Amino acid sequence: MAEFRFHLPIEVRYGDLDPQWHVNNARYLSFFEQARMAFLVQLGLWDGQDFNRLGLIVADVHIAYLAPMVLFGKYRLDQRVARIGNKSLLFEYQIVDETSGEAMARAETVMVTYDYDRHASIPVPESWRRKIAEFEGLVN
Amino acid sequence: MAEFRFHLPIEVRYGDLDPQWHVNNARYLSFFEQARMAFLVQLGLWDGQDFNRLGLIVADVHIAYLAPMVLFGKYRLDQRVARIGNKSLLFEYQIVDETSGEAMARAETVMVTYDYDRHASIPVPESWRRKIAEFEGLVN
Amino acid sequence: MAEFRFHLPIEVRYGDLDPQWHVNNARYLSFFEQARMAFLVQLGLWDGQDFNRLGLIVADVHIAYLAPMVLFGKYRLDQRVARIGNKSLLFEYQIVDETSGEAMARAETVMVTYDYDRHASIPVPESWRRKIAEFEGLVN
Amino acid sequence: MAEFRFHLPIEVRYGDLDPQWHVNNARYLSFFEQARMAFLVQLGLWDGQDFNRLGLIVADVHIAYLAPMVLFGKYRLDQRVARIGNKSLLFEYQIVDETSGEAMARAETVMVTYDYDRHASIPVPESWRRKIAEFEGLVN
Repeated sequence: MAEFRFHLPIEVRYGDLDPQWHVNNARYLSFFEQARMAFLVQLGLWDGQDFNRLGLIVADVHIAYLAPMVLFGKYRLDQRVARIGNKSLLFEYQIVDETSGEAMARAETVMVTYDYDRHASIPVPESWRRKIAEFEGLVN
Repeated sequence: MAEFRFHLPIEVRYGDLDPQWHVNNARYLSFFEQARMAFLVQLGLWDGQDFNRLGLIVADVHIAYLAPMVLFGKYRLDQRVARIGNKSLLFEYQIVDETSGEAMARAETVMVTYDYDRHASIPVPESWRRKIAEFEGLVN
Repeated sequence: MAEFRFHLPIEVRYGDLDPQWHVNNARYLSFFEQARMAFLVQLGLWDGQDFNRLGLIVADVHIAYLAPMVLFGKYRLDQRVARIGNKSLLFEYQIVDETSGEAMARAETVMVTYDYDRHASIPVPESWRRKIAEFEGLVN
Repeated sequence: MAEFRFHLPIEVRYGDLDPQWHVNNARYLSFFEQARMAFLVQLGLWDGQDFNRLGLIVADVHIAYLAPMVLFGKYRLDQRVARIGNKSLLFEYQIVDETSGEAMARAETVMVTYDYDRHASIPVPESWRRKIAEFEGLVN
């Protein structure tokens, strides 16, 4: 299995918790989203400012919740682009408890490359393909 | 294909929107969650007040995003329990634009029956099995 | 005291609750925000679609929390523009439990009229002044 | 004016932003809340786990929004308890852009000491009074 080369610490907020005293299931998608944004900026694919240039839209998500996340836990989000399609990228994620090493969740999202001005999907740009393949060690 | 017998109108809030001017992908899970709560109360499986008696925990979610949801749209969430397992229920959902009839999203979540006091999964209670099967027209 | 002429039902979501089993304090601002959006659309001051034409930015909020809001409660948000300034509007709000008539919260927000393209405050447009004064029964 | 002795870095999330491309006004309350939780744990007033022992409930908030917060900004939240009442604490906050030194927001919240089991306000416990006064350099 491929390794994860992109990592982001997750700070759980009180505001992420629900009446069950755990991180609400919907917030995991916000964590993954946050990792994607940081990844795009780090690879120079987005300036982090102009949201009409963001270039990706969520098409499909799958999350397996393995153990509940709690306030003040130390968590790390691992992320990779596992596949570069014609008009989409497959992102894979796992959330790991830094203290125990236990996996809290595993997930994947299909992200379609998208032009927010024209409201239309677009082919994965060549520069994206090259930079992501290089970062991830993928055969392009 | 089975029909949906449980329906909930969705009111999109400004606070559900993200910089792309659409409902943020994470909020769909809040909509599904809201439908489950209303369903549990309607079937008399939960009193809507004691969250230690809630009885379900999310194990797995899958969402296919088909079209973006916008502020002031008229949406309806359809929900059904498609399968009753030993210790889990399979919920299926679709979000429909009431004006156009178009499907905005389709999803399913695996909900494990859970005792929040003991922090442990439990078999689906007989009363749940009977009431849900009856409501959904499932062979129990 | 002036009356409230604008009303909005509030649907509490499970996702609005926090570990204390009540609506989280931050969500009240989302409820007020939702009422403002509906108000702007109803008075024809905004089309509800182009967020660069939204015309208002929050400058100041004050909320008094009187009683906790719960899931499945029946609440009504009352709103009025109490004062029209040179470059700002003073909104007042109260949240009322429809069942008991009890006030759950009282609040006010100072909204500055704002041009999101130019990132600058602007004088309250004449058409806004006229329409709001008429709706609220204010001496303009 | 008294100094701030408690500081917390704020990581803005994409999920905190709204269609205006800035941090949504409601999220500031989540930032303040997060600082309070960290403060209570640091001073040994709460274990960070049992939310029935949390001991504080929000009674009143006032926020002055001075400049918009953006994604990937470097922000610091300053917090202090400015006054210890009989049954309440007055918290003051400011959010500062670490890069420019500019204040983004100033706020205060009145927090009532509260017993979540009995659903009733309680006098500020002596141990709280002593530890907070010591930390803040307040005359108790």
